[in-house]
Amino acid sequence: MIVVMKTSATERDIQDVINRIEEQGLVAHPIFGKQRTVVGVVGSSFRQDLADMLSAIQEVETVIPVSKKYKLASREFNPISTTVRVGDVVIGGDEVVVMAGPCSVENEEQVMLTARAAKAAGARILRGGAFKPRTSPYQFRGLGEDGLKILANARAETGLPIITEVLTPADVDLVAQHSDILQIGARNMQNFVLLEECGRSNKPVLLKRGLSATIEEWLLAAEYILNTGNKQLMLCERGIRSFDPATRNVFDLTAVPLVKRLSHLPVIADPSHSTGKWYLVEPMAMAAVACGADGLLIEIHPNPDHALSDGPQSLTLENFAKLMPKLSAIAQATSRYVGDSLTAVS
Amino acid sequence: MIVVMKTSATERDIQDVINRIEEQGLVAHPIFGKQRTVVGVVGSSFRQDLADMLSAIQEVETVIPVSKKYKLASREFNPISTTVRVGDVVIGGDEVVVMAGPCSVENEEQVMLTARAAKAAGARILRGGAFKPRTSPYQFRGLGEDGLKILANARAETGLPIITEVLTPADVDLVAQHSDILQIGARNMQNFVLLEECGRSNKPVLLKRGLSATIEEWLLAAEYILNTGNKQLMLCERGIRSFDPATRNVFDLTAVPLVKRLSHLPVIADPSHSTGKWYLVEPMAMAAVACGADGLLIEIHPNPDHALSDGPQSLTLENFAKLMPKLSAIAQATSRYVGDSLTAVS
Amino acid sequence: MIVVMKTSATERDIQDVINRIEEQGLVAHPIFGKQRTVVGVVGSSFRQDLADMLSAIQEVETVIPVSKKYKLASREFNPISTTVRVGDVVIGGDEVVVMAGPCSVENEEQVMLTARAAKAAGARILRGGAFKPRTSPYQFRGLGEDGLKILANARAETGLPIITEVLTPADVDLVAQHSDILQIGARNMQNFVLLEECGRSNKPVLLKRGLSATIEEWLLAAEYILNTGNKQLMLCERGIRSFDPATRNVFDLTAVPLVKRLSHLPVIADPSHSTGKWYLVEPMAMAAVACGADGLLIEIHPNPDHALSDGPQSLTLENFAKLMPKLSAIAQATSRYVGDSLTAVS
Amino acid sequence: MIVVMKTSATERDIQDVINRIEEQGLVAHPIFGKQRTVVGVVGSSFRQDLADMLSAIQEVETVIPVSKKYKLASREFNPISTTVRVGDVVIGGDEVVVMAGPCSVENEEQVMLTARAAKAAGARILRGGAFKPRTSPYQFRGLGEDGLKILANARAETGLPIITEVLTPADVDLVAQHSDILQIGARNMQNFVLLEECGRSNKPVLLKRGLSATIEEWLLAAEYILNTGNKQLMLCERGIRSFDPATRNVFDLTAVPLVKRLSHLPVIADPSHSTGKWYLVEPMAMAAVACGADGLLIEIHPNPDHALSDGPQSLTLENFAKLMPKLSAIAQATSRYVGDSLTAVS
Repeated sequence: MIVVMKTSATERDIQDVINRIEEQGLVAHPIFGKQRTVVGVVGSSFRQDLADMLSAIQEVETVIPVSKKYKLASREFNPISTTVRVGDVVIGGDEVVVMAGPCSVENEEQVMLTARAAKAAGARILRGGAFKPRTSPYQFRGLGEDGLKILANARAETGLPIITEVLTPADVDLVAQHSDILQIGARNMQNFVLLEECGRSNKPVLLKRGLSATIEEWLLAAEYILNTGNKQLMLCERGIRSFDPATRNVFDLTAVPLVKRLSHLPVIADPSHSTGKWYLVEPMAMAAVACGADGLLIEIHPNPDHALSDGPQSLTLENFAKLMPKLSAIAQATSRYVGDSLTAVS
Repeated sequence: MIVVMKTSATERDIQDVINRIEEQGLVAHPIFGKQRTVVGVVGSSFRQDLADMLSAIQEVETVIPVSKKYKLASREFNPISTTVRVGDVVIGGDEVVVMAGPCSVENEEQVMLTARAAKAAGARILRGGAFKPRTSPYQFRGLGEDGLKILANARAETGLPIITEVLTPADVDLVAQHSDILQIGARNMQNFVLLEECGRSNKPVLLKRGLSATIEEWLLAAEYILNTGNKQLMLCERGIRSFDPATRNVFDLTAVPLVKRLSHLPVIADPSHSTGKWYLVEPMAMAAVACGADGLLIEIHPNPDHALSDGPQSLTLENFAKLMPKLSAIAQATSRYVGDSLTAVS
Repeated sequence: MIVVMKTSATERDIQDVINRIEEQGLVAHPIFGKQRTVVGVVGSSFRQDLADMLSAIQEVETVIPVSKKYKLASREFNPISTTVRVGDVVIGGDEVVVMAGPCSVENEEQVMLTARAAKAAGARILRGGAFKPRTSPYQFRGLGEDGLKILANARAETGLPIITEVLTPADVDLVAQHSDILQIGARNMQNFVLLEECGRSNKPVLLKRGLSATIEEWLLAAEYILNTGNKQLMLCERGIRSFDPATRNVFDLTAVPLVKRLSHLPVIADPSHSTGKWYLVEPMAMAAVACGADGLLIEIHPNPDHALSDGPQSLTLENFAKLMPKLSAIAQATSRYVGDSLTAVS
Repeated sequence: MIVVMKTSATERDIQDVINRIEEQGLVAHPIFGKQRTVVGVVGSSFRQDLADMLSAIQEVETVIPVSKKYKLASREFNPISTTVRVGDVVIGGDEVVVMAGPCSVENEEQVMLTARAAKAAGARILRGGAFKPRTSPYQFRGLGEDGLKILANARAETGLPIITEVLTPADVDLVAQHSDILQIGARNMQNFVLLEECGRSNKPVLLKRGLSATIEEWLLAAEYILNTGNKQLMLCERGIRSFDPATRNVFDLTAVPLVKRLSHLPVIADPSHSTGKWYLVEPMAMAAVACGADGLLIEIHPNPDHALSDGPQSLTLENFAKLMPKLSAIAQATSRYVGDSLTAVS
């Protein structure tokens, strides 16, 4: 940590700061510049609130953290890439894992039709929402436990593990009972009680980036989960908020290689929510694979213009089937594969 | 609702859209333009998801909502301004209600000292955090129930009603037992289960705007609370996220008069979180009163450079005492008053 | 400047950085932390590009500037507040100077009518656009030189000095010949050739903040003008871009007190462009005065619903006349005044 | 265009709006809804300012444009994709055209070394800045005309056409004399005089997206150039501004397929400026090719840690040589090619 003093700071002000640092059992290294003084702080363990305290001192201009605020999530702490295992699917390895399914679980037929088509096209995990966070209280909020059971039936038939969102701490047990992966949505990225409850479930967790979360905040949210002892965690970039109404969100694909450099956790990309338009899903799914995403989360629907949510961004089952070989070609160009490796090789 | 067809849409495509609208028991009014056709939709009740469905149709360019998505929160629905009553304090009337206190409850002495000074200076409600949402799991997360008890003691001594944040649905009962107002923080603005649980408590609720929430989303979140039957709701602007690191957030003060025009709910402004710097609190508190805020939420601390959270944005008790007459002068210039009306008049 | 090394940096890497610093005639102060090493850089003059060079070194994590990048614009360099004089109007003193007029100069009658009403209501400077930057090439782009002459006629009749925008370096001489103040618009804030050309005109300049300019970038743009030797400069906050379509821009009023703290230059606020809606101009103009703006730039029009540009955000002449006493009341509450001081006192 | 009336609008208010529309020779189609009335406007040519005028009417809630504001740039107007020819290079066809070179031209040796390496690795166009827009007046601003001559020498030796930025209208002739393509930088996207001057040069133009420009504003800026009769235009996505300091900008890659759908113009991607970090250039260049970019603009430097600008985001010549076969593999997976087609096939 570096404490930057104001140009108006006197020797006594500087000494006060040094005293405050030493009170904490840390060592202060002042550097007397031409314009102003800065004080380096060295020690083995900092209170995270120390920066706040020092920057509240009158003659301190600003306090600059040098160490990263997250630890368990950082690649410096754990240089080996994490892999998450769900049944026989490994996320974070050579396979680019495609997770596909409808935005909302609407009924048994819709899910079965979708699950079969997803599997046939090479998807490895089935997604579907049973508890839906909706901007308006008047929108469809999902089938709840009935939806979970429909997903479980689809798993029983197709063998595809399932991923579904959990909205609130009280539902974690119920969702964990049916689902193979717990998804934490963008709006809940800083719902810290939910993060810890999902962590303690010991189920694999997928943590979406918040609508306006910095990468540092996202990794600190991951830290909450890792801190419960649950290491089966993956992150998901799903678009961030911007000034341009042209797309639903801005797909910050650069976050994929950047987070994989800063952290050891697998990174999934969601080209459906990030773009909001089905015709942008194909090119952006390809781009996500090209820049190193470990998996994709794609909304598909047998009949998007009758979907109860997110129809405009859902691929038809036919368009999804056409997309998969294109993803496979890109993956191969990056020495990875999509879907069954045998298919990929042949 | 207006459905805009693509320029390439054929008569048959337009007829398909008309049929979809009529299937829902609504009336379609096509307008055949020079370049393209648009279809107006008229009817007494729309499914909120209809727009999504129609915009998923291939030859539909876009769907434009005409009605507002929120109803109970809108001034069109309820033209009379809502007032929220907490003890003898009325929020949303002629008084500009100042709520002040520390970011975190740290100990009995700190809170008592602060509460007495707040009251002496003219504050009407005591704020203080017992459950703290923190970006990092390694930061101070509040004293929990012990903190609530300290706040209750301060109320007992000073007579100031209290406002404190509730983080998760399971804590609503506990917090409602001690606190006069339930505060929902910015990170939880779209924690829909929490919104409904707070609504059902029948306690007055203060709903902060999310870090990157549009005004429409904020009013839709309010709608979740109003929809439980709880009308004792106030909104709080606390800064939104922007590209400029110069301040902690951008204080969107225009939201104050705009929301008061769109909605009947009282609007509070928080100059502490929105600016992040104590020396900006005074001018921005004055600006908030000038543009019509119904109240202010201000962080004060006996010793900001030892605060366990948000020291840099907390006013000292002395600076708070100096601020109050300035707020009073501005309020009078807008035909309102701050603090005790007798004081204001004298 | 602080150079933060990676945790993986070896002693040799650190020595390389020290050598690079010393090559520049500067002094390096390494601090060896528990996790990583940082190197403080001390010296009397830095190349502004040194930070870039050092951060391109493989084992450097990041480079943190400590000194401000702007100098002539900073209050540290020049602690005395600058005042700009235009005729008998002083901007940056006790008066809050109101500049009002139409967005575009449309014809002689419109401008005369507006100028007379502006003066009668207490405005001190007449604004009006003769050269208009327009998002689309098919919109009205202003009357050009004819517009300048109309403004000059209005000045001749009313005695109000005029402010008008200049779009391109080749027009600076022409605009400077007619106008008392040169306005540089938001889109041109980083049109560096234009900044220098306006600077060299030796006319007072008003520099609007760019749509997505940080405060640091804005002050660096000011630095371009001050660096030509022209000190008659004022800044204007006119709203920044955000994610919310509810208002045209987000009015970053906090920039007013913040820039006045960082810089000695006067700060004007433009409640018309920042909100985009006439009914928000009144409350936000009042807020701007309350937080310390040195002046206001307000769009008014005799007939806003026939205006050739920006009708929705223009006040009628009647509404402007009603606004002025309200601004005066707020100004007095902050120990300043609006319009003629005698009027203000009486 | 759709005019949405307020719910409080009377029949007379609606008739007033209809009259205003008919005054313009247009046809009004009112639709009387349950809650409010909307008025569709039909006609062959609208004044672009009509929307502004109508929305300034008291009882009008909002005005919604239905037609796109740009015409010459739109694919609806011109369904055939534009190709831009520079010597024997065709941009917008099957080749993904790589443009590489230093941020700034520093000296003859640096440019020659870079140009030879660029050509050897398969780049087709040489980039380099002679006139540099710099945030601070104290940074290196380029060699000016001497820089142009150095670039021309590099073209003479290597045969690579050159692209370089022009900052101000007065320099267009000089830059057009030496350069094969005129680049308009992000800060100048709405420098309308410069756009038209570049258009009139009849040289191919590359128009970068502004730092906070919507896609609509970008295409309207393109419209300024196309409107001069110059059709040799390409667009370049270079990152937009966001709230996250983790990268220099947010690379909005979704803009690539979206703009190619909305417009017939070729779209180039700049992974150097958009990410700001050399180690992100490789994955994001690959992603850009995967989602359909027609070309790439990449900064390379023989010695990035001595570069006079943008060192941190420049690839070494070695890293660039390693990148090219990876780009080629991705291009082939999308049925396109990078560099010499014979090389690509072999």
